[in-house]
Amino acid sequence: MRGARLASVAILACLLSVGALAQPQRPSDEQRIRQLDRDWVAKVAAKDLAGTVAFYAKDGVVMAPNAPPAEGTAAITETWRGILGLPNGSLTFAPTRVTVAKSADLAYEVGTYSLAFDGAKGRVQDQGKYVVVWKKEGRAWKVAADIFNSNQPATP
Amino acid sequence: MRGARLASVAILACLLSVGALAQPQRPSDEQRIRQLDRDWVAKVAAKDLAGTVAFYAKDGVVMAPNAPPAEGTAAITETWRGILGLPNGSLTFAPTRVTVAKSADLAYEVGTYSLAFDGAKGRVQDQGKYVVVWKKEGRAWKVAADIFNSNQPATP
Repeated sequence: MRGARLASVAILACLLSVGALAQPQRPSDEQRIRQLDRDWVAKVAAKDLAGTVAFYAKDGVVMAPNAPPAEGTAAITETWRGILGLPNGSLTFAPTRVTVAKSADLAYEVGTYSLAFDGAKGRVQDQGKYVVVWKKEGRAWKVAADIFNSNQPATP
Repeated sequence: MRGARLASVAILACLLSVGALAQPQRPSDEQRIRQLDRDWVAKVAAKDLAGTVAFYAKDGVVMAPNAPPAEGTAAITETWRGILGLPNGSLTFAPTRVTVAKSADLAYEVGTYSLAFDGAKGRVQDQGKYVVVWKKEGRAWKVAADIFNSNQPATP
């Protein structure tokens, strides 16, 4: 009995492995977007301006606090030139939730960011949150809209 | 010839009218969302707290500047209690762009808001921008995420 049960388990394990191998290995759209976020953070860490801006759609928009919306590649580039140029700056971000439409032409993520730089009155350490909307352009996911704000109380 | 041409035009116009009448009169998802925005603004103007919060999904999130994210009905209600309670306050908003996924389970809008209230140092007049993500819950569109920030320079 014990031998038969072991054999059954072995056969089942074998079938499951073959099943797993037969599955297409293509990442899901959520996995692709999460990877894009990691790649994006790496471009930001490298202060690669063109590489950072390349994640946006041509008609994408960045909505930074205390500034008008920056729409299109030229305006987005100027916004990021400011962020990447912050003295001794560091910025990281990561999604807490990524949701993809069933039609896989639209997705959005909610996440948190951490920004630090040398300000006029000393080191600034900011924590905040963001929404990024992604849209499919051909086969590529591109950022359609990007908006963020701070969790910290406004300076009085 | 002239009479025949006029008759043809009349027949064509008639066919087009019948075609238009035969079209289903159901509003598109974009039209439905734009109407929801108008209804939402009306609830805000009426200082109807429950009516204002009812636009959000149960797991929806409001991301106001200078505060942590407010997730779920209780936290969203507290955020809106603060906004609707601003002295002599007025808030309006409207989308500039509404985009619906082909599968019609997800949509987002980009828009602008106008907020005024009596502050400690006089009347505050704020202009800003926002992103609202909508998701389909059954047949109803509900707000999944709502984030905004000011266009105006930070107070020094």
